[in-house]
Formats: sequence, C-alpha cells, structure tokens
Amino acid sequence: MKIAILPGDGIGPEVTEQARRVLDALDLPKLTIWEGDVGGIAYKRHGHPLPQETLEMARAADAVLFGAVGDPDCDDLPREHRPEQAILGLRSELGLFANLRPAAGYPGLEDMSSLRPEIARGIDLLVVRELNGDVYFGDKGERSSDGGREGWDAMSYNEAEVRRIAHTGFQAAQKRRGRLTSVDKANVLETSRIWRETVIEVAKEYPDVELDHMYVDNAAMQMVRSPGQFDVILTGNLFGDILSDQASACVGSIGLLASASMGERQTDFGTFGLYEPIHGSAPDIAGQGKANPIAAILSLAMLLRHSLGRENEAGRIERAVAKVVASDVRGADLGGTASTSEIGDAVLRQMT
Amino acid sequence: MKIAILPGDGIGPEVTEQARRVLDALDLPKLTIWEGDVGGIAYKRHGHPLPQETLEMARAADAVLFGAVGDPDCDDLPREHRPEQAILGLRSELGLFANLRPAAGYPGLEDMSSLRPEIARGIDLLVVRELNGDVYFGDKGERSSDGGREGWDAMSYNEAEVRRIAHTGFQAAQKRRGRLTSVDKANVLETSRIWRETVIEVAKEYPDVELDHMYVDNAAMQMVRSPGQFDVILTGNLFGDILSDQASACVGSIGLLASASMGERQTDFGTFGLYEPIHGSAPDIAGQGKANPIAAILSLAMLLRHSLGRENEAGRIERAVAKVVASDVRGADLGGTASTSEIGDAVLRQMT
Ligand SMILES: CC(C)[C@H](C(=O)O)[C@@H](O)C(=O)O
Ligand SMILES: CC(C)[C@H](C(=O)O)[C@@H](O)C(=O)O
Repeated sequence: MKIAILPGDGIGPEVTEQARRVLDALDLPKLTIWEGDVGGIAYKRHGHPLPQETLEMARAADAVLFGAVGDPDCDDLPREHRPEQAILGLRSELGLFANLRPAAGYPGLEDMSSLRPEIARGIDLLVVRELNGDVYFGDKGERSSDGGREGWDAMSYNEAEVRRIAHTGFQAAQKRRGRLTSVDKANVLETSRIWRETVIEVAKEYPDVELDHMYVDNAAMQMVRSPGQFDVILTGNLFGDILSDQASACVGSIGLLASASMGERQTDFGTFGLYEPIHGSAPDIAGQGKANPIAAILSLAMLLRHSLGRENEAGRIERAVAKVVASDVRGADLGGTASTSEIGDAVLRQMT
Repeated sequence: MKIAILPGDGIGPEVTEQARRVLDALDLPKLTIWEGDVGGIAYKRHGHPLPQETLEMARAADAVLFGAVGDPDCDDLPREHRPEQAILGLRSELGLFANLRPAAGYPGLEDMSSLRPEIARGIDLLVVRELNGDVYFGDKGERSSDGGREGWDAMSYNEAEVRRIAHTGFQAAQKRRGRLTSVDKANVLETSRIWRETVIEVAKEYPDVELDHMYVDNAAMQMVRSPGQFDVILTGNLFGDILSDQASACVGSIGLLASASMGERQTDFGTFGLYEPIHGSAPDIAGQGKANPIAAILSLAMLLRHSLGRENEAGRIERAVAKVVASDVRGADLGGTASTSEIGDAVLRQMT
C-alpha cells in the first residue's frame, strides 16, 4: 500500500502532520508513505505548483492525502503558476471526476452554525460534484470584441461525462436515504439540458432511488431555508463548487469536514482517490498551532475506507474523532483553546 | 406617464391586482396604465410567452410592473416557448442590464429567517446583478462528441459590459455604506479575469468606495456565515442568479422582497425599468388568496421612484407597508391568516 502525502501551503503541513501521526499509530503492515511538494511551496522550490515529480508520485500511489494550497506570495503570478492550479492539475491528470463532500452536523456542535440549531441539526447531506468537466476545463481565453477585451470560457457536458458521475450519485444515494436531487440550470443552459436528460436516463437503473431536479438558484435558496430536505445532491463542477461550500457553511464547523475525489482506476485494495480537508490553507493562522487537524484526520479515514479497503481502521479513527469532538478538547475554530497537536494527541488517546 | 402591467402566471395576477389598487389610490395625474399578457398565459392565448404586442407595449411604456411567470402546464414545451423565456426576452429586448435586488430584514421579522435572529437582523445588502450577458445570452447548442450528445454554452464578458454594470454598482455603494464586493471565479474563468480587471479599472473613479473581491464559492459561504459583512455585491448574470436567491432566503421573508431591472434609456421622469417581486408564480397557491402582495406593492414603489421620479409617493407606499408588516396583519407566508386582498386593504388604509 502506497500513500502520497502532499501537505502543501499554509496550515496544510500542520494538519497533515497530525493525520500522519494517526496513520503511524495504526501501524499498518506493508505501508509505504511518500511526501511531495505541491502549491506555492512547490512553485518556490521547483518553479511549478505541480512539479512532474509530485504528479508521478501521486500516480504511482494507491491514494493521495492532500493538505491545502494557496499562498498570498503567489497572488501576482500568472494563473498557470498559481497554487490553485496544482489541485486542478491533479484532478484532471489523475482523472478524479467525482468529488464527494459530506456535510452533516456533529451532535453538540449545532451552536457553531449560523443557522438556527433546530435547522442545523437536521443537516445530513452529501454533495456529489463532477470534477473533470464543465466550464472549468473547456477552452478559454481572451479575444477582442466591439466592447473591448473579452474573456470567454466554454461550458459543456456530454452524455458519457454525466453518466459516469450520475452512477456515483445514485450509488451513494442507495447507501444513504435513497434520495437524489440533481441540480442544474436547465431553463437557461444547453449544458444543463443534456445533464438533466442523461440523469433521467441513468435513473432508470436505480428504481429504488427517488430523483428530483432543482434549478441551482432554488437549490441555493433551499439550502438555507431547509437544508434537511437534501440527501444526495448531484451536480456539475461549477454549481458543485458553490453549493458544497454553502453546505459546509450551513453545518458551521468547516474545520471538521473532509472530502474525497475519486477516479476510475481500481487499486489492489479499492478505488484510487485524493482526500483533503474542505478548509483552505488559511495563511493568516499558519504556523501558529491554531488549525484544527480533524478535517485532515477524517480525510485519512475516508482514504483508508475507499482506497485501501481498511473499513475497520477508518471506523476506529472516526469513533475516536467523535469522542474528541464531544469532549471539551476544542480548537479555536470551535471556541476552544486546544492547539493543533493537542487535538492530535486527543485523537490518538481515544484510539487506544 | 405610461405604465405597462404584465401580471403573468400563477399568483402574478393576484399580487399585481393589489399593487394596481395602491397605484389607483395615489390618483396620479396623466397616468396611462396598460395591461398585457406574458408567460404561460400568453403562450396559451397567443402562441408565444412574449407576444410581439406585449413587447411593444413594454417598449412604449416608461416602466413595466411585472408579476411572475411559470406554469406547470408548459413544462413539456420546447425551451423557446416556456414561460421563463418571456422574462429573458424582456431583459434582452429592452436592454435591462442591471438587476438590483435589495435584501434586508424587516425589524420584527427576524424569526422568519432560518438564520439565527442576531445574524438575520444584521442583513442589509444589495445585489447588483448583470442581466444582459454571461452564459445566459452566449451561443449555445447541442453537438455530437466522443462521449455522445454534448450540450454547450459560451460564457463571456467584455470590458464595455462590465464597465456599465460596475458603474451601477459603485454608484449604488456611494448611496449606501460605501462598500462594494465584486464576486467572480477569477481563479478558474477568463470571463472572470476580464471582469475583475475591469472592475478594478472602474474603481479608480470611485475613490470613496471600498472595493474587495471574493470568489463565488467563498461568497456563498460568507453569505451564510456572516451576511452582515456585505453592503453592495456586484456580480455577473449566473453568479447573481444564485447569490441573490440565497440572500433572499437568508432574510427569510421572500414574500416581501422586490427587485428592479434597469436599462440605459432615460424616460421623461427617470430611467426605464422593469419591476417585479422576487418570488415566483407559486402555482400551488395560485387563485386561493394566499399570496402576499407586499413584494408586488414594493416593486411599484421602486417603479415610482426610479422610473417616474415620484419619490414622495414611493416613500408613502413604503411607510404604509412598514406599518402593515409591523402590525398583526400577516399573510400565510409569515405565519398569519390575512388574505391577499386583506393585506392590500391594510396597506391602503395606512396610506390615507
Ligand atoms: C481552488 C479552486 C480552483 C477550487 C475549485 O474551484 O474547484 C476550490 O474552490 C475547490 O472547491 O476545491
Ligand atoms: C426564470 C429564470 C430564467 C431567471 C434567471 O435565471 O435569471 C430567474 O431565476 C431569475 O432570477 O429571474
């Protein structure tokens, strides 16, 4: 089993360090761990946010544990050298087409949400976001027009792309509460029309899943008004970017939320994937021991489950985390004073 | 002064009827009022959701008061005949490029929001959404690809388009708290890069306005976490669609929110515009007297102010509405029992 850890920028190294301690404590047999540079730090060291060496390491691994990228020093670089390009590059180069972002409140943490506690408490949803297509990866550029310089981006989805992610969505719904809401803007976009028609087609193979369709503007509204209505939200790359962040904010405690980006490649133990906290690099608190490592630790748990077939170990980590969250060991993000490593210590203690 | 009233579908006719009563009560001199069909009802009567006659009526008027469009009977029609096309057609044909959507809590109605009262109370923002460009009006279609049928839509903004709406945004900020947040996705989209560069350019003419930039995913997150941080949000057509609906949901009482869509054409009394409640046609409650007409009445107030130069009358209506909202006359949407016409009666009573 080979894991590539890419700590990245800002608080990325601090939080992945704690995940690494948890991984070491599991003492898994035949495990190889590599570390590589990615993001702003990679640009500074190697002249590119996603060095060839890092990409090859990720490709050779069974799973990638990713910290965060983003560095204010790089703000003025041309886009292709900016840290964010590293994550976009990994997604496309590794064929990571399915982003899974669960958002659910932790019992006892409802007070962290800006939603009313009774509404926050009811959130238990999974955003399944397509990650290899849409306006993200279409042709784009600048041209001149009657109105001066014009920026343009091509948005598209074809049936094969939609089918692939739709299967992921329906299968996830089968394992959850059996409801899938497909979000699009089919009243305006042709891209969405193909999206919707294909989802309806795929739905025939999942008669046990209840499907409905929602326009993205309405979804953004419903996510505030009654987020508890959602089980699985299936959507494209751009709408998924917006709605998954909105969903995380509704839960409140984004220092606790993990995500998985899955490809098609099967490893010897599961499906190849990249796992990362949903929080960013938070340069303002980097290096101060203030970051909450729980999201990184839970990302590791997802990695063990989905890519390494280690359900037992994943469960062990998740149960330990739940105990820590329910205890008085809380990071600054949850109104507490525990440091990054103290939270790591607490998780390790609960695992024994 | 010529006003075209387009009641449309569902609850549109009921709510505009109450606005019409308020307008009649003002007894304005030299006022001509026309009524026209739009949306599903127009399709049924004339074979098109935006009949030529309606378009010409709107064009000849100084302002348009719009109800709502959307009719489940039309769900299976091809897109060009669907009711929504009427509003898209009016926006482009009439050059309505600036959509202004204020979202602010009414004192005493914080309990209607799903946000915590202390957070809902702090909301007082204006979304300035570009309405004539972006992926809404670019080329679009279906083509075949290696992955089967492919839907595609061209997204773009040029400098002239951005400049025009940016001026609207900065001028609105000057009249408010002097802060403008421009929302884009410049880390991924070339359209957004031109957007951002142009906004920065225009900002030089408004040194008294504090400008910042936010990615749309972060904006959707911040809108939940701390919506009180926003004054004016300036954004494109697609992101504006999503964020303005999200903002309305944060306020809670969408039956009270009005919007204006402004063009460049000056009338003898102000700027030509179309005014509409932000709620939709709500076919499920149509014809039952359950709809709240306040949003339509406040749309009329905006119309009087911006297109007819009738600040006094606009203020009179808004003060009357504020009294009704603070009273125990509440519609079903606010947990009360007052009917559509009873709420209209109450506003009329407060105006005398
Ligand atoms: C950094 C950025 C390009 C990225 C995206 O838009 O996908 C991020 O917002 C995310 O959601 O992972
Ligand atoms: C009906 C639809 C085309 C429209 C839009 O997307 O602009 C609506 O959502 C709105 O915001 O007015």
